[in-house]
Amino acid sequence: MKFEHVMEQMKNRMPEKRYIHTRGVATTAVHLAEKYGEDSEKAELAGILHDSVKYADKEWLKEKIISEKMDPILLEFHHELWHAPVGSYVAKNEFNINDEDILNAIKYHTTGRACMSRLEKIIYISDMIEPSRNFPGVELLRKKAELDLEDAMISCIQHSMTFLIEKKQPVFPDSFHCYNDLIQKKGKVNE
Amino acid sequence: MKFEHVMEQMKNRMPEKRYIHTRGVATTAVHLAEKYGEDSEKAELAGILHDSVKYADKEWLKEKIISEKMDPILLEFHHELWHAPVGSYVAKNEFNINDEDILNAIKYHTTGRACMSRLEKIIYISDMIEPSRNFPGVELLRKKAELDLEDAMISCIQHSMTFLIEKKQPVFPDSFHCYNDLIQKKGKVNE
Repeated sequence: MKFEHVMEQMKNRMPEKRYIHTRGVATTAVHLAEKYGEDSEKAELAGILHDSVKYADKEWLKEKIISEKMDPILLEFHHELWHAPVGSYVAKNEFNINDEDILNAIKYHTTGRACMSRLEKIIYISDMIEPSRNFPGVELLRKKAELDLEDAMISCIQHSMTFLIEKKQPVFPDSFHCYNDLIQKKGKVNE
Repeated sequence: MKFEHVMEQMKNRMPEKRYIHTRGVATTAVHLAEKYGEDSEKAELAGILHDSVKYADKEWLKEKIISEKMDPILLEFHHELWHAPVGSYVAKNEFNINDEDILNAIKYHTTGRACMSRLEKIIYISDMIEPSRNFPGVELLRKKAELDLEDAMISCIQHSMTFLIEKKQPVFPDSFHCYNDLIQKKGKVNE
């Protein structure tokens, strides 16, 4: 791991299980970056930093969303979503990451969004399929990630949406736009 | 049936199977209207007229969407969605229906939308559960419709969304907003 010193800093920020997950995301992201022609150092940094504030105080996350003028609609949704945009802010301001693509990959790793970059897709997918993840269907997602990044991304967002809807949970608008964007780009309607 | 003369006019507009469906929607809508304190005549009219242009020429539907300045995003989605807003236009202009609630119930019977009226929900649900419908899960939806209109509506839109996402089909924005609106009104987030 190239950025082992950054990885080490994650240890104090999260329980061991999440640290193992973080390491897994970074490793998976590097693998997918190499496979699909993306910058593997960017992928590693985004993977390492994606969950840096996952265990931050809820009120602190809320304050950051307000003070940094992030999308206010976040506050209408479950606080589980807040660590992604605030994590992007922390990557920039505490870890001095200035690469917009890395910052966006962190920002949208939970929800996705329309018109995702290749790096954003790699981090979103890696977060779902890294080796310590264990849910019904994860093996199929892993196989798809080895074959086609676009198809894997569609299957991952499809999985997230179905999971939320079956549990009657709200779906964040960015996830909906991510899904429709991918589907509409892939298929041709009215033919 | 109070508006048998309007129902008769549907015969020339659709195949027999769809005519039976239309009759079923009208009857189911009257039943639900009586059950949930809605105007049953409105429910019957909306039910009878909801699919009046289901078999209209695709190009004619498209022209109407453009010339009547309906939501242009409709044209980016499957033509299956077009008969609902154009059906509402036809109800107004050919059948002289001026009641906005009836017109909206027809307009949104395929997609749903945020903040649906009681009549809109009744038509949406009736369209899914009328007696000739036959798909896995329809019996459960019928049972729910007898118990609670709100719960039934959530289960119906949940069913539609899951159906589309499993088939990797685009979801029309109104359906997404309908789903989130119902879910967010029902549950309290961040508690």
